Formats: sequence, C-alpha cells, structure tokens
Amino acid sequence: MEFAKGHGTQNDFVVLPDPSAELELTRSAVAVLCDRRQGIGADGILRVARAGVLRDAGVLDRLPTGVEPDDWFMDYRNGDGTIAEMCGNGVRVFAHYLRVHDLEHRDQFVVGSRAGARAVTVHSFDDTDADVTVAMGDVTLMGSSSVTIAGGAYEGVGIDVGNPHLACVDGTLTRAALGALDLSVPPTLDAEFFPRGANVELLTRLDDGGVEMRVFERGVGETRSCGTGTVAAAAAALSYEGLETGEVSVGVLGGRVRVNIDHVGATLRGPSVLLARGEIDDRWFAAQN
Amino acid sequence: MEFAKGHGTQNDFVVLPDPSAELELTRSAVAVLCDRRQGIGADGILRVARAGVLRDAGVLDRLPTGVEPDDWFMDYRNGDGTIAEMCGNGVRVFAHYLRVHDLEHRDQFVVGSRAGARAVTVHSFDDTDADVTVAMGDVTLMGSSSVTIAGGAYEGVGIDVGNPHLACVDGTLTRAALGALDLSVPPTLDAEFFPRGANVELLTRLDDGGVEMRVFERGVGETRSCGTGTVAAAAAALSYEGLETGEVSVGVLGGRVRVNIDHVGATLRGPSVLLARGEIDDRWFAAQN
Repeated sequence: MEFAKGHGTQNDFVVLPDPSAELELTRSAVAVLCDRRQGIGADGILRVARAGVLRDAGVLDRLPTGVEPDDWFMDYRNGDGTIAEMCGNGVRVFAHYLRVHDLEHRDQFVVGSRAGARAVTVHSFDDTDADVTVAMGDVTLMGSSSVTIAGGAYEGVGIDVGNPHLACVDGTLTRAALGALDLSVPPTLDAEFFPRGANVELLTRLDDGGVEMRVFERGVGETRSCGTGTVAAAAAALSYEGLETGEVSVGVLGGRVRVNIDHVGATLRGPSVLLARGEIDDRWFAAQN
Repeated sequence: MEFAKGHGTQNDFVVLPDPSAELELTRSAVAVLCDRRQGIGADGILRVARAGVLRDAGVLDRLPTGVEPDDWFMDYRNGDGTIAEMCGNGVRVFAHYLRVHDLEHRDQFVVGSRAGARAVTVHSFDDTDADVTVAMGDVTLMGSSSVTIAGGAYEGVGIDVGNPHLACVDGTLTRAALGALDLSVPPTLDAEFFPRGANVELLTRLDDGGVEMRVFERGVGETRSCGTGTVAAAAAALSYEGLETGEVSVGVLGGRVRVNIDHVGATLRGPSVLLARGEIDDRWFAAQN
C-alpha cells in the first residue's frame, strides 16, 4: 500500500491513497501506523478516495452536506484510530497531495469531509511545498468564560468552530512571556460552560495584524498547531479590538497561518509540506488489525 | 534518496542506504528528518555504506578496531543529529535491512560501528520481521551505588557496557508495581560515582529466567527500550543471584529480548521490524541543511 508523509505547520499526517476504498482502516491498525515508534508515526491518517466510492464501500453512511459523489473525500482518522470530522491543517496537505499526484487539475475545488464540503484554493504548489486556503465554515462566539492554565487564571471567549474553544487574549502578554509558559498541565475549565471540554488558546493582543498563540488540545495536550484553534484565536483577537471581521496572521509553534473572518465564515491559509512517499508492507499492516 | 523505516523493540530508525557515501548528513538535516512532525520521525538514523567507502569519503577518520574496508558499517546518528558509537537495537535492524536487500548473503557476518566490529547472527528473517543476535562486547561491573528515582531510593550495580548504567534489582518489586512507577522525573545519581551521568534501569528479580525492566536514558528520559540497558539489567539480575554468567529474558516496554552473558562478553538477541520503504524528496532534504 502506498503512502506519503506530510505536515501543515507541523501537524503531521500519513496520506493513504485508496481509490477503490479497499483498505481496512481498523482502529488498531490506524493506531499502530500512527504510533511514532512502531509505525510511520503521525497525528492522523488522511485516506484519499472519492466520496461516492467511500459511500458504496460502506465507509460513509451517506454523503455529508454539499459533498458530491465525485468529490475527493478526506477520510480523516485521529492517531488513536478514532474518527474526526475535520482537520483544518489536514485539508491543506490533502489538497496538496491531490494536485501533486494529478488527481485534481484545478486550483479551486471542493474537498469532502464528514463536516461537509470544504472549498479549497491551491495558490501555488510543487512536489514538496504548497500554499493553500481552506474554507473553515461558521465561527460562533458564545460569550465569556475563564480558565486556569499555565499556573494562572485567564479570561477568554468561548468560540464554536465546529468544535469548542476558549480563546484567551492577554493584552499584557509578550511573545517571550507566551513562549515561557508551561502548558504541560491540563487546563481547568468551567464545566457548565463547556460540558464536553474545549481546546484552550492563549494569545497575544493583535499587533500589526498578527498574534502569537499556544494551544492545549482537549484530550491531547499542547500541540504545535491546531487549525480550528487558529481560527478561534483570530476571532478572539478581533473581538478584543471590538471587530467582527478581518484578517489575522496567527503564529503557532509549528509555523504561521492567515485567518480571514467575514460574515459568511472563516478561511484558513497556510503551508503544506510533503516530504516522503513510499510503500507500507501489506502483510505488516494486515497483522495490526 | 531511498529510506526504510523500522524498529527493534520500539527503538525506531530511519535506514538510509548510501553506497557511495554521498549524503550530507549534517546535524540539522538529521534532526529535522528525525523530528516526529516535520520529518519521518525516528530515534536515530542508520546510514548503510561499506566502511572503506565511508573512510574514503572522510566520514570516518580511520577504520575502527576489527572493521575491514568491505564490512557494512552502521553510521549511526542520534535523533538530535549527534553521533553515537553504537546502538544495540539499531544493529539488529541494520542487519535485517542488509539481508532483505541482498546486500549481505550470509547469516553470520560483521557489522562495523564506531565502537568496533560487531558480530551478528540473523537466525531468521522475511521482508518485515527478523530475529537477530548481536555481540555487545564486554560488560564490566563497577560496584554498588544508589539512586533516587520514581519517588524512591534504590540500590544498584554500576555497569559499563561501553556506556555507564546503574541497574537496580528490587527483590520486592512486582511486575504491576514496576509498571505503575512514574519515571517522568530524571534520577538523582551519585555524581562522584557517575561523573558523566548514567542510564538507570529498575528491574524485578530473576524469576524463571526472566526479568521485567524500565529504563531512564541519560539526556533522553524514559524510553521503550535500550539495548545496552537490557544487557546491564541482565548482568545485575545475575549478580543479584550470585551468578556471573547466564541467559536472561528481559522484558521492556517495547517487547522482549534475550541477553547472554559469559566470560567473553554479552550477546543481545531480539526482533527487528521493517514496515515501510520509500523515497525522501532530495530537495526537501537539502533544504534542511
């Protein structure tokens, strides 16, 4: 079975082209493949197949909203083998892969995901690098809440980007002070406000169009990047300045992305890197089920 | 550039065949290649070339003791890009790779390393799995010392296996209790006894020929496996029973190996897994220098 390895701002993926949807992506096989010592290692898997093929193979019960049978579908699996609906950094790598491998010839097209159709624009690409914008859908501000994290108490804005976030702008936080925070301990959230928990972003105030952020992902820990987290951070940064729309350059540990928020939703623009490709031994993979 | 990904008891490696020793393995390029999000990800790199070729290319100043120009040489690099002399788990994967790719036709041969020639025996192999014994050289007991680790004080035996270890048998430790220990905090060693620090092994008493161990590697943290650590643990387990020689089955988090200790040195026998192969983009790799 073929694979490629890539990342978007250091959120990394194993891409598995599977045009006939023949791979058996059991939870255990995905978990071992994503295990960073036993397998290839990745934050998640991006299976590449057309939406209609995945539906006919029984991987999808039905086509999600806006997704056509001929659309390429990002069948995303978390590193632990569970299914996730969307991954903003993953879509960039997925779109890059489609263009490099001539599976898609246009620069603007739709990628199917379990969260629905996602419009993408590939601004530029070559074999290893691409610059891609992804439509991230609605951003809903849910009001203020507070959190204890990194040994301090922070006020933030609850934000729904398909998943829940608490994005905290600290107007006094310098870039150096942000970098020095210890995010090794899980945050304590208001359980009434966030009954299912939330990702927490800490960020500097908007300065010259940009912010710096760090993110603690629910159930994972601090990560180098979180696509929806950068959108939540941009919305909170704009809100902090009394703005509802605008473009924000968001620096994360793994790189930098641009988030645009307007009244029809958010877009996320950032890099994709594809660095290696090859074959995974079929027999080895089958033995992990 | 070609690569393969493999592991020995979950100590994992990127294998880079480089018969003409043309790859420029700078510290930064190796570190990015081994970075688990930006690169392929691995504990280390195993470059495959003949010893004489590496010498002629200037990678080796001279051939280490017992290494002939035609021997295959394991040019090992740590994940941070630094050079290490030897890696007991790496040699098994290296030998497996040589057999799978028909670079070596015998079952018994010599692998060159910076620590000298290492005799290996490939007992069995196929494309993905192998069972390999590696000669690990001398094991020297250096006397008793103590350590504070996992919230307790332990007595152990200082052991030199090319690198320094403190292997602590706890006669009362059950397998479950060993598994429950918290090894997230670096140990406090006797700095006079171990001026350069040491790897620390905690292990159960020898029972039916086997022990279970956990290991904290100097400068790294807890790992799933440590080849020299299993040898040190076996020596300590035998010593605890008043024995100088014998065979010990050593369970680590990443699997199980067999260590044999006699008066001419130690051997380490264990599994190797090769699960994927492919190409790393040359331009991407060159850009990491």
